Amino acid sequence: MMEKQSSSSTNPTNSYPAKKEPLRVGVLGFGGLGQAAARVLAPKQQMLWVAAADQKGYAYDAAGLNPDSCITTYRSQGSLGYLEPAGVLSNQTIQDLINQASVDGYFLALPNLPNTFMASVARQFIEAGWQGVLVDALKRTSAVEQLLELQDELQEAGITYMTGCGATPGLLTAAAALAAQSYAEIHRVEITFGVGIANWEAYRATIREDIAHLPGYNVERAKGMSDAEVEALLEQTNGILKLENMEHADDVMLELAGICSRDRVTVGGIVDTRNPQKPLKTNVQITGRTFEGKISTHTFTLGNETSMAANVCGPAFGYLKAGVSLHQRGIYGLFTAAEVMPHFVN
Amino acid sequence: MMEKQSSSSTNPTNSYPAKKEPLRVGVLGFGGLGQAAARVLAPKQQMLWVAAADQKGYAYDAAGLNPDSCITTYRSQGSLGYLEPAGVLSNQTIQDLINQASVDGYFLALPNLPNTFMASVARQFIEAGWQGVLVDALKRTSAVEQLLELQDELQEAGITYMTGCGATPGLLTAAAALAAQSYAEIHRVEITFGVGIANWEAYRATIREDIAHLPGYNVERAKGMSDAEVEALLEQTNGILKLENMEHADDVMLELAGICSRDRVTVGGIVDTRNPQKPLKTNVQITGRTFEGKISTHTFTLGNETSMAANVCGPAFGYLKAGVSLHQRGIYGLFTAAEVMPHFVN
Repeated sequence: MMEKQSSSSTNPTNSYPAKKEPLRVGVLGFGGLGQAAARVLAPKQQMLWVAAADQKGYAYDAAGLNPDSCITTYRSQGSLGYLEPAGVLSNQTIQDLINQASVDGYFLALPNLPNTFMASVARQFIEAGWQGVLVDALKRTSAVEQLLELQDELQEAGITYMTGCGATPGLLTAAAALAAQSYAEIHRVEITFGVGIANWEAYRATIREDIAHLPGYNVERAKGMSDAEVEALLEQTNGILKLENMEHADDVMLELAGICSRDRVTVGGIVDTRNPQKPLKTNVQITGRTFEGKISTHTFTLGNETSMAANVCGPAFGYLKAGVSLHQRGIYGLFTAAEVMPHFVN
Repeated sequence: MMEKQSSSSTNPTNSYPAKKEPLRVGVLGFGGLGQAAARVLAPKQQMLWVAAADQKGYAYDAAGLNPDSCITTYRSQGSLGYLEPAGVLSNQTIQDLINQASVDGYFLALPNLPNTFMASVARQFIEAGWQGVLVDALKRTSAVEQLLELQDELQEAGITYMTGCGATPGLLTAAAALAAQSYAEIHRVEITFGVGIANWEAYRATIREDIAHLPGYNVERAKGMSDAEVEALLEQTNGILKLENMEHADDVMLELAGICSRDRVTVGGIVDTRNPQKPLKTNVQITGRTFEGKISTHTFTLGNETSMAANVCGPAFGYLKAGVSLHQRGIYGLFTAAEVMPHFVN
């Protein structure tokens, strides 16, 4: 029997050589997602978390930031600007951080409220003459479309921008793009997510974005709701948000990748704001016709024990690393999660 | 309610611009896999099948080959060399085809018997001074390792070589690389495949490669078996081949991509040689630990109605298209299916 060989690695020249020095990474936004990102980064050898910003301040330390100190400061004092000694209070935190920090790539863990916000942040990077990699975990089709309009400017600026690189869009969109390979034609891509969070207050911005998808709500109305109003809404629904036919950029991303027209892509899910256990297994089903004329469905299913934070931040940094490989080769412009394989970050 | 927008595409500059002219594609090997590849290519707008070779001859037509004519000729006369008017009989078919044909990329649908054969074919392309994209659907770790040794030569030659780009390794390896993104550490990647074929004689070489994995067999012995001997073996097992702990290159590919050490990757499966229905659903399970310390498993499952041919040839051409994008940017050398996102071919 030919057993699996356990020979040592041949150590070939890697096709996408990893930098020997860890990548210097920044995180913009320090709510639930930004704080999770800091925790994800902390044990990595290949990335060093050196910069972070919130609305009122930023922190930068070329030797690396400490997640515990940053999270404690943010929660107790309301801004990273109070961090000793690396914090700086500012009225233009992103601009100040861009100018001060040496960073290879930023994860934009910002709530996209208003819906034009992420594109305006990208413009700030372009205008500052900054060069490097930007990654977002945007959700809405219309928000990704605004970035598509910046394609040429990003390319000229020397910025490699990876958009839609969270869980959905992101990990599940990429799984759909991959699964599509077995088929001659794609009939349907159906994403169904389950999210469970113990306490919605740790994800205030994310929950407001979800509420904006509900019947009778929109982005402006959701953003304008007080915490008490959100609480009252969740009281009515027993803490459950049921979302159907959502405006999710998975559709435009799969269309751009040439996989199917956007109307064949649907996204929906159930968010339980009072239970960390997921109400259903997040999955994407890809249905198509093979070259022999058979109709079939591939399925990619996420383990229930993986949190939204793990499924968003992990891929985001995987795409950041892949983006750095592109950037090092002089490949700039806009890319989506459906076009590029994320690189695992150790 | 914010409904899904049905606005027309914004038609941005695509990050990886598709060639306007269809890619000119060749297929080396014209057994079951090569013939399926011809059928997969036939309806594509973005690829034109212009060249094919078997052991005794080749066919080349810059205007495109007809799959029906080619398959009929091969089956009735034993070689594409008899095809009228595009066929040529030859004792060195690959070398002659390389020299004569204008081809952007070849799918190497060759049985890798002996186990050094694919690497020797790659060397022929290097020695001929050919530039373009090569894609294989190799299975064995040791075969992929031989190609890894050619990394520098391929790069110097201006060849972009995509290895392990079938189903497993290939589609399922890439799914594992993608799924890994949710985790801080990967504990186990377990690939289990089901293959059903109505008639083993249409896949003589593939079945011999499978037999080589059985206890008491190896590549040389399997290759040396007569059809009658294969038939007798299958009679004993009721047509079922049960394969465990196979030497599959998924392991070295995931190790090279930095995802986990090769000993954490296992591949096994069941091949039914007398029934086109699969004995079980082909799947890959990726188990890891998230940054929060949770252990979980993502699963990617292929629809039962998708054939081995669809799951090998589809991804192979998706990687060929992605390889052409790399090649057009001057990115040469060796890449695996775990590093690059395949591009959907319309």
